[in-house]
Amino acid sequence: MDFKELEDIEHKIEEREDFSGEKVRPLIIFFPKNEEEVVRIVKFARKVKIPIIPWGSGTNLTGAASCDKNCILIDMSKMNKILEINDVDWYVRVQPGIKLIDLFEELEKKGFMLPPDPASFFLCSVGGAVAESSGGMKGVRHGSFREWVLALRVVLPDGEVIKVGEPLRKNRAGYDLVHLFVGSEGTLGVITEIWLRIIPLPKRKMVMISALLKDFESVGEVIVGLRKNRILPELSEYVDADVVRALNKHLNANLKETEGGMLLISIEEDMVNDVLKVLEGKTIDVKVAEGEEAEKLYSLRAQAAIAVKAESGNVFYAEDIVVPVSKLPEAIRRLKEIGRKYNTKFYVISHIGDGNLHPNIIIEDKDTRERAFEEIARMAIELGGSVSGEHGIGVQKAKLMAEQIAKHNGIRVLDLMYQIKKLIDPDDIMNPNKYVELAYKFLNNSSN
Amino acid sequence: MDFKELEDIEHKIEEREDFSGEKVRPLIIFFPKNEEEVVRIVKFARKVKIPIIPWGSGTNLTGAASCDKNCILIDMSKMNKILEINDVDWYVRVQPGIKLIDLFEELEKKGFMLPPDPASFFLCSVGGAVAESSGGMKGVRHGSFREWVLALRVVLPDGEVIKVGEPLRKNRAGYDLVHLFVGSEGTLGVITEIWLRIIPLPKRKMVMISALLKDFESVGEVIVGLRKNRILPELSEYVDADVVRALNKHLNANLKETEGGMLLISIEEDMVNDVLKVLEGKTIDVKVAEGEEAEKLYSLRAQAAIAVKAESGNVFYAEDIVVPVSKLPEAIRRLKEIGRKYNTKFYVISHIGDGNLHPNIIIEDKDTRERAFEEIARMAIELGGSVSGEHGIGVQKAKLMAEQIAKHNGIRVLDLMYQIKKLIDPDDIMNPNKYVELAYKFLNNSSN
Ligand SMILES: Cc1cc2nc3c(=O)[nH]c(=O)nc-3n(C[C@H](O)[C@H](O)[C@H](O)COP(=O)(O)OP(=O)(O)OC[C@H]3O[C@@H](n4cnc5c(N)ncnc54)[C@H](O)[C@@H]3O)c2cc1C
Ligand SMILES: Cc1cc2nc3c(=O)[nH]c(=O)nc-3n(C[C@H](O)[C@H](O)[C@H](O)COP(=O)(O)OP(=O)(O)OC[C@H]3O[C@@H](n4cnc5c(N)ncnc54)[C@H](O)[C@@H]3O)c2cc1C
Repeated sequence: MDFKELEDIEHKIEEREDFSGEKVRPLIIFFPKNEEEVVRIVKFARKVKIPIIPWGSGTNLTGAASCDKNCILIDMSKMNKILEINDVDWYVRVQPGIKLIDLFEELEKKGFMLPPDPASFFLCSVGGAVAESSGGMKGVRHGSFREWVLALRVVLPDGEVIKVGEPLRKNRAGYDLVHLFVGSEGTLGVITEIWLRIIPLPKRKMVMISALLKDFESVGEVIVGLRKNRILPELSEYVDADVVRALNKHLNANLKETEGGMLLISIEEDMVNDVLKVLEGKTIDVKVAEGEEAEKLYSLRAQAAIAVKAESGNVFYAEDIVVPVSKLPEAIRRLKEIGRKYNTKFYVISHIGDGNLHPNIIIEDKDTRERAFEEIARMAIELGGSVSGEHGIGVQKAKLMAEQIAKHNGIRVLDLMYQIKKLIDPDDIMNPNKYVELAYKFLNNSSN
Repeated sequence: MDFKELEDIEHKIEEREDFSGEKVRPLIIFFPKNEEEVVRIVKFARKVKIPIIPWGSGTNLTGAASCDKNCILIDMSKMNKILEINDVDWYVRVQPGIKLIDLFEELEKKGFMLPPDPASFFLCSVGGAVAESSGGMKGVRHGSFREWVLALRVVLPDGEVIKVGEPLRKNRAGYDLVHLFVGSEGTLGVITEIWLRIIPLPKRKMVMISALLKDFESVGEVIVGLRKNRILPELSEYVDADVVRALNKHLNANLKETEGGMLLISIEEDMVNDVLKVLEGKTIDVKVAEGEEAEKLYSLRAQAAIAVKAESGNVFYAEDIVVPVSKLPEAIRRLKEIGRKYNTKFYVISHIGDGNLHPNIIIEDKDTRERAFEEIARMAIELGGSVSGEHGIGVQKAKLMAEQIAKHNGIRVLDLMYQIKKLIDPDDIMNPNKYVELAYKFLNNSSN
């Protein structure tokens, strides 16, 4: 393939792997420094009919940026500027390649926050988080990225640039296309600019309750208890006993090891007692941390997946089911059963407060691993949940997504999604054969 | 037209008018009592190629439910049940015909709220509010309906029933179709069931600050001041001096009349002083109300449009522009200029906190009225705002919407919207010739 007409754009030839372990073997990787260069790459790719894969930081956990044969990777890391922090209109405008942690830091200096904080915030790009509609630890109160994106600039698969949405919280000028592109996993276009809503840092003092639980089962009951008592923490995260051990082993966390694992709840200081009441009888030890100590706990939680990955080597499948909160006790019970059946531990990390569980599957044998993975996802579907809360679909979950939609929504829904993909990307060059397209093929029995 | 095969479905023949004054002259009005009946009506309409107009309560202010020749009106008021209030998963599932006020009352009994509260809440249906993605008085903190809809059941234009979304706050199974239907103004299908996220009633004591301003200009400065001080009220609403007079005259409001009109700010009691500081020097009188007194102010604000309508008879165009908050002072100055130019008062009602202004245009002559209306909308476009924040587009704003999209987004965006309409409603029977379709026709110079 002759890339001559693009040779002035920074590029290199290299193989990669995303965080899910899927291979990325592009013909070439481009590093555009502005939207114009993105347009040129996309137009070229369309002309020669080579797939394009946008790449943020490669932290996705589903193979959403993989390609195993011909493809052009567009690495967005050079488009990493903050273009504007507007302290009256309360939005920030950024290029997609900026790391989330860098954005968080600049916002904090100005007294603002962008709440969704995927535990990968220290690695992932904002563009990737928008394309995945990532959630995070504060999702229980503030939701995931889709609740924070106001507008986007997008290079469509034919190279035309559009802006969807307005940098306004309220705007009724037409169908909502913003939310079509948020969570589209690079399959509808390349995002080149992003307007995100921001809010002031909390005015009230927040504290972090860390509760060592008696047993794994308790955590579901605690979360249901919080809900019944109409308590809405800013964060309620859970890691099980095996994750705590992995954190101690690989990150010198120095956490107390108990059979029940650790629940972290951050909330306004004057609400602590309400939480403690719900915790009564379910814990071995409870501490209320603030300041640095609270931050350390938060940061350990953020690195939990890293610790599990270190523990497992590359035999690592991160599940990402959501179940209705009311079904958490049942989901947890059934998760234990599945673990016993496969004779394995699941290293459960979770945004437990919104029913979002990440059992991490560490089974040597690939087939068995996949079967366990699917069994857990099907349990979520059965309980009225979803096969993905925030990690998305990529290649690894397309079949399960098809099953969920067939069961909960009607296959027509998947058909509609696929028609929209074809409408926007008729030549099928934008991150093809993944996500909606792949799910559609599974359901229509013509997967290739 | 022979409606025999539908005669067992409750129906009547009647002309109507929506709140914007547009005529509704259907061949027949059906009152389905369940989804099955909706399906039968839709299938019939498609067979005989008659347009269908879903109708909630007719409070829309843009002619979104109008029809002046052949059409079937589907009045959803008989499908008005609350199907479930889930106090652990924190959602409510309702039929679309329920009045918002009835839903609010039931939720409150259980300690919950659904924050978006259009000032028409005592009249409008939940289905209408979802189809319009209505905002409301608490939008400044909590956003409009699109931030609260989790899932929908929809009867598509060919009669097939789908469910989009899941009753989960986090769900990444496929492109986001929920937000395509929210704000679709009945042009993509008939919504038959709705899952809405709910949250606990505020735990902290809220109070209502009512500030009589020195002059109209001050209000912009106050709002910018709140933003700069990182203060986020639960509600910040403004009505100008003429609206206050109309409230006194038609609703015996007994409000003090000043040249600057009245700003209402609701916020947690312990934040009141922060607000008062921003108000310093800008007011003639400030009161802090709570309990019944606060509720009375809230309810007067909700009825402000009713008072203006009473004052104006039928010569009433409700504008609904949004401008970036930072542009409020300029927008207000220019609004005054336009008023002087047309020698009229605008009766400004507004969700001022998020830059959403409703200047109500009361000019006898239709052409002049329309010109003033358009001039205001174009000012919003120029300032980087939107021609509609929450009332939507209907027939009255399609041209302006086309202008906005052409200017801010690229005409390709309108094309994409229109392609989606054609994809979902190829026979063009769902509330045709309005909104996206009409805007598209304006832009493509083939309006009929
Ligand atoms: C340790 C760890 C913890 C994690 N914790 C969380 C968590 O708490 N919550 C959560 O939601 N996720 C989590 N994840 C998953 C992952 O981090 C997120 O999905 C992440 O936001 C992806 O960002 P990225 O920049 O790495 O994107 P990539 O992995 O590079 O790409 C992800 C997808 O987005 C597309 N994409 C990237 N940039 C663009 C662009 N500019 N335009 C169009 N498409 C684009 C890609 O094509 C791909 O489909 C975690 C991952 C790790 C490794
Ligand atoms: C006094 C007053 C105050 C107002 N204040 C506000 C405000 O503060 N904020 C705000 O946003 N709006 C406000 N409005 C505008 C209006 O009330 C809202 O747009 C309202 O939510 C519409 O609800 P409705 O049930 O009356 O819908 P209708 O007027 O009957 O219909 C509106 C649109 O929705 C469609 N529709 C209705 N039901 C369905 C369904 N089941 N499926 C599919 N489509 C459907 C219709 O076809 C139409 O296109 C106000 C109106 C009045 C009269």
